[in-house]
Amino acid sequence: MSRFFSVKYNMLEPYTPGEQPQDMQYVKLNTNESPFPPSPKAIEAAAKAAERLQLYSDPECRTLTEKFCEVFGTGKDEVIFANGSDEVLNFAFMAFCDDAHPAAFPNITYGFYPVFAQLNGVPYREIPLFHDLTINPEDYCGINKTIFLPNPNAPTGIALRRSDIEPILRTNPNNVVIVDEAYVDFGTESCLTMTRKYENLLVAQTFSKSRSMAGARLGYGVGNPELIRDLNTIKYSTNPYNINSMSMAAGIGELSDEEYTRKNCRTIEENREFTVEALRRRGFAIPDSKANFIFVKHVMLDGETIYRKLKERGVLVRHFTRPIIADYNRISIGTREQMQTLIDKLDEILGETA
Amino acid sequence: MSRFFSVKYNMLEPYTPGEQPQDMQYVKLNTNESPFPPSPKAIEAAAKAAERLQLYSDPECRTLTEKFCEVFGTGKDEVIFANGSDEVLNFAFMAFCDDAHPAAFPNITYGFYPVFAQLNGVPYREIPLFHDLTINPEDYCGINKTIFLPNPNAPTGIALRRSDIEPILRTNPNNVVIVDEAYVDFGTESCLTMTRKYENLLVAQTFSKSRSMAGARLGYGVGNPELIRDLNTIKYSTNPYNINSMSMAAGIGELSDEEYTRKNCRTIEENREFTVEALRRRGFAIPDSKANFIFVKHVMLDGETIYRKLKERGVLVRHFTRPIIADYNRISIGTREQMQTLIDKLDEILGETA
Repeated sequence: MSRFFSVKYNMLEPYTPGEQPQDMQYVKLNTNESPFPPSPKAIEAAAKAAERLQLYSDPECRTLTEKFCEVFGTGKDEVIFANGSDEVLNFAFMAFCDDAHPAAFPNITYGFYPVFAQLNGVPYREIPLFHDLTINPEDYCGINKTIFLPNPNAPTGIALRRSDIEPILRTNPNNVVIVDEAYVDFGTESCLTMTRKYENLLVAQTFSKSRSMAGARLGYGVGNPELIRDLNTIKYSTNPYNINSMSMAAGIGELSDEEYTRKNCRTIEENREFTVEALRRRGFAIPDSKANFIFVKHVMLDGETIYRKLKERGVLVRHFTRPIIADYNRISIGTREQMQTLIDKLDEILGETA
Repeated sequence: MSRFFSVKYNMLEPYTPGEQPQDMQYVKLNTNESPFPPSPKAIEAAAKAAERLQLYSDPECRTLTEKFCEVFGTGKDEVIFANGSDEVLNFAFMAFCDDAHPAAFPNITYGFYPVFAQLNGVPYREIPLFHDLTINPEDYCGINKTIFLPNPNAPTGIALRRSDIEPILRTNPNNVVIVDEAYVDFGTESCLTMTRKYENLLVAQTFSKSRSMAGARLGYGVGNPELIRDLNTIKYSTNPYNINSMSMAAGIGELSDEEYTRKNCRTIEENREFTVEALRRRGFAIPDSKANFIFVKHVMLDGETIYRKLKERGVLVRHFTRPIIADYNRISIGTREQMQTLIDKLDEILGETA
């Protein structure tokens, strides 16, 4: 760091995104992207918006908001859009956490939570998962902390039910509970329906996964109007024009094509079950996933070796070096052909090490 | 605010962007946008990128960086791209300001500086302009503060010379000086050439104005590699995927069409001089502007009346209600036709109030 860098970030450890190698074409199963292109309506709308880039995007996202409310049945003052759901999460750390409202989240989860906490100087508690990698909802009841609850959890893919989450909301009435539903569309119950019942519930979702728009950076938060107003105070003090006009237009196009999204999600769920079955037959332990990825550990071969040997063979998966999960790899679910390639390469690897 | 909102933002007053009314079509001279569409190369590249939105954008912006370095002659480690230059500024407030490094900027300037300072809990000093609205460089020498220096200044349009800025850099060796060059391409000397000479210089620029890409949200900072590394630490702890892939592609397309940009800038400079001359003849006082806007005050008619009567006639300009500048309006420079419309409407207004 330079000698000018503020001492308050001395201990800050930035997030490490999944690798984006340029050396060759990989079967890319490492960053939970959709294998399907965005809806043709999204592509067309974005291209049209590009022709008018000389004008600022609408900081209020009015047209996108109207379309969203039509599809989701929310009120216009119950949603905020952001530059990816990461921005919703950061805004929530800023708005709803401080010394009097420490954060809490699982010890094995989205790696950005502790970074956001450190960035914002917020004390936080990491709550251990069970040995089977599940979240125990009781651990989050009555803890008087601002809770970040990924559902399904990453990188495990394991989902909670709405009925597991309600007691957490009820027993932490003075704290916001942020349910991070980045991967909700692949078989998990969403909490979106509960935001009017619980004033302390904020749901974060994204266009990155199920809606095939990771490159557009478009996420949103849904909650009661007072929470949304707070997040807008942060937004208008940070970057009012946080969403570019092409992504806004693409979002509107995408929301006009719900059947396309649903079909893609169903295909990914089918490919997930196909892959899980094939891998379990080959000696992998895999928690039941409700996400567009699976978290796999082989009975014999260690995680780093599998990651490395797959990469050598042109298949990229995500390996985490933290000791507690170093035996595992997270594998995104792609097309049937991609998953078959993965299985074939794993057969090669298991064959040569047998 | 909700009862969950952190007390640390009790006093935060968000930025108010220029109005984006939807009630009718205005001659829109209120947000300093370019009247010209983006380069056809930018449009084409963005449309192509939209087809692959399912993939994350490159957090390292490698291709854009390479193109940028080719055009600007900087090193790859001397530039950081961001979601608009507002994000560069916010990152700089985060990285280089704290209790030991308070901020300083003019009292009449870009209205976001005090908001960023408040957002980040940074003490700040607003340094008064001279009565003729100019910045006195001596006021910034040896003050041991992290200085935000817009050049040209907004909303006045008045520029400093590089030789005015060098003493500020030399006499504040333990603080970063951020030269905010959002409007530099319309006749102001850039400090880009000095970043290798002064390790404490950070220059912020944007694709929003001269490059006709306000809706793309693409800005950048240039400085010595250590400063850039600090800003990247903040970026990777905030939103590594801060730039969407369409804006990145559009930026590359735009940088391949430098002649188009230069031509547009020359046209805007010509239209500016044309407008200044016409308005001065009509009793307006106007400081010499080197930006794509002018700051005008009439000898008889007050600023709010002019703003209101222009809006009634379909011409939108920016009026600020702060008493110290309430007599003025900031008028963006558009096409010759738009400026002629402005002049005609002003003639109507001056005629009826004579």
